[in-house]
Amino acid sequence: MAKSRRKSENGFFEDSSEPVTLSPQDERTLGSIYGLASKITTLVEQDSDPALAIPARTLGNVSFNEEKRVLQMGSKTTSRELFNLSQAKSFMQTTLVASGAKRLIEMGKTTSIRGLYYMLKHDIKPSKEPTFHDQGECDPIIEDCEVLLESLREELHLFADKRGDMVGNIKIVDSGDEIDCSRMGSGGYAIPSIVEPSVIQFKECKAKFVLHVEKNTVWQRFNEDKFWKKHNCVLTHGNGQPPRGVRRLLNRLHNELGLPIYCLLDNDPWGYYIYSVIKQGSINLAYESERMATPDAKFIGVRSRDFERCGLSEGVKISLNDVDRKRAKQIADYPWFVHKKDWQREIDLMLRNGFKLEVEALVSRSISYMTEEYVPRLLKEGDFLD
Amino acid sequence: MAKSRRKSENGFFEDSSEPVTLSPQDERTLGSIYGLASKITTLVEQDSDPALAIPARTLGNVSFNEEKRVLQMGSKTTSRELFNLSQAKSFMQTTLVASGAKRLIEMGKTTSIRGLYYMLKHDIKPSKEPTFHDQGECDPIIEDCEVLLESLREELHLFADKRGDMVGNIKIVDSGDEIDCSRMGSGGYAIPSIVEPSVIQFKECKAKFVLHVEKNTVWQRFNEDKFWKKHNCVLTHGNGQPPRGVRRLLNRLHNELGLPIYCLLDNDPWGYYIYSVIKQGSINLAYESERMATPDAKFIGVRSRDFERCGLSEGVKISLNDVDRKRAKQIADYPWFVHKKDWQREIDLMLRNGFKLEVEALVSRSISYMTEEYVPRLLKEGDFLD
Repeated sequence: MAKSRRKSENGFFEDSSEPVTLSPQDERTLGSIYGLASKITTLVEQDSDPALAIPARTLGNVSFNEEKRVLQMGSKTTSRELFNLSQAKSFMQTTLVASGAKRLIEMGKTTSIRGLYYMLKHDIKPSKEPTFHDQGECDPIIEDCEVLLESLREELHLFADKRGDMVGNIKIVDSGDEIDCSRMGSGGYAIPSIVEPSVIQFKECKAKFVLHVEKNTVWQRFNEDKFWKKHNCVLTHGNGQPPRGVRRLLNRLHNELGLPIYCLLDNDPWGYYIYSVIKQGSINLAYESERMATPDAKFIGVRSRDFERCGLSEGVKISLNDVDRKRAKQIADYPWFVHKKDWQREIDLMLRNGFKLEVEALVSRSISYMTEEYVPRLLKEGDFLD
Repeated sequence: MAKSRRKSENGFFEDSSEPVTLSPQDERTLGSIYGLASKITTLVEQDSDPALAIPARTLGNVSFNEEKRVLQMGSKTTSRELFNLSQAKSFMQTTLVASGAKRLIEMGKTTSIRGLYYMLKHDIKPSKEPTFHDQGECDPIIEDCEVLLESLREELHLFADKRGDMVGNIKIVDSGDEIDCSRMGSGGYAIPSIVEPSVIQFKECKAKFVLHVEKNTVWQRFNEDKFWKKHNCVLTHGNGQPPRGVRRLLNRLHNELGLPIYCLLDNDPWGYYIYSVIKQGSINLAYESERMATPDAKFIGVRSRDFERCGLSEGVKISLNDVDRKRAKQIADYPWFVHKKDWQREIDLMLRNGFKLEVEALVSRSISYMTEEYVPRLLKEGDFLD
């Protein structure tokens, strides 16, 4: 396999002018892509019809692995054939996305899924038929390639939106720059989209745990109160549903550094769902759960009991609506919640309360109640939901 | 004026346990709040009805200041009276928000507008009438207080959502931590919501300009290609419409360090609008334009001419819809665009093209075309829209 190349073999776009050195991970991913290509050429050489076996990304092919405690894909596949009128286009698109990933890896560059779409979009001459009509046609093909190549999107050199910041007693190296997250002021270190070991290495970690909060505004409160300094931890947020980079980083902080992950989320079905995604993975993207999910993550709050227990003022209650009630029941039925009495009680109490509570509701006690009393007490008592 | 206090005068929530030292800015803001309070008490002592003169935040009271080239509020005010059945509640809310800001400043703490809402929300005993029904009732009162006290929201110790990152040849000090933005890896320094001089100081700047891009995905491309190193600049993004912290930081980078600001935005009405907000300020928040807007900012692209000039492939065109056409015409009529021939031609060409172009469309040329050819050429030629 060529370690660098200066000329693109198809001239579709120019390669980087700098030869690049591939990381071991890049070598592995490229190996998968070459493997895929050689399967197809072997079929051609054998006079068989070219076809790909795409692992089925349907709910029926997703199950909860009780032992590993993550969502997992089953072994069902569907065939995608070149000589099949209804599949020829998606066959072409699949190999096109794989070839795009190959070129990105060889150039040592990354792009967004939007960038890849533009990079691959062109008319198939002499027709005026475009390779992709729109982004919506490209995205599922990218996911197909991820499962087909057993590679995370990040390993295909594709990045997602980034949002989410980190501060705390940890030093990391990001792309060769040493970053001391205990010296990041009020702004913090912006967690990138790709946090694979080839980009980010952990240099030194004194922190004993990670506190992950849902919102950047809550994160700002915890950072301003230097919570992470007093309690020797790492403080992260994901601006709502955490993006892939944040989830992967939590996974690495837990698995490589042994840090417990505590999540401070709203007391509502959306907060439960965020916890579920951090802990068990996302149903849509079950194939990446083992590297994206953190089954040991704990839910520290806000809890349905807190209105009374914390003596919050009446005004902080937000009434549940029908969607909330429906979502709460769905989540209670998730295989990883259905047998957990604590979670059943938690969700049931929210439904009986008839209201939800945001983390910011704790401000009604005092501006730093959440950082100085609420979280410290729960940490001390080890009072979490699992 | 007390420089610190350990007891809240009304016991509504506990003050910080640490006495704080007020910054000169905090002293000024507190002075405005005391001034407001003493106007009211003077009226009471004179047996007059307590009233506030609230500057009108309506379109009719906003004009474009040709000399300063920013949106400005006029001098119209409306009276808000305590002994007026329809105004009593908003009178109470206004003084309540001002007192909340006072307490935050005295504690040396900041909170989100959501936090302030929860902090101030309570039933007015013995009635069950809440001080605020919802956040929507609180937000305009916060804006009233900003104009009434001639203080930016940040000076009232309120922060907004933060999003937007920075890298480049600049060293800053954020809350006492020195941050070298040329050593921030792939993630970058996360721009906080409050970037006032009391929080952020510029320590050393070698950069010669700022490139501000619309999207974090484009920012990642520029950062990965180390554009800021090759071209000795600062690289920022605001994840779409830049939040207050990013706009204020651009303003400070320009006014205090003399850095030109170049904006790389989509070729569509939304991109034009973002430019307009960065340059002239937001119509809704015209009272803060002088400190939030940067009238010298330049628009570097993407331009309506670029499809042809850059030889982009057909597939990157996105058809204009009716909303786009309507918005484009509105923007062309803005007082700060209406006399600019270049802008009229630019918007007119987009309308005649019938399509818009995203920055990522440049990827159809090559993955680093935007960082290695497009922007460098325009910078070299000084080819901007003003």
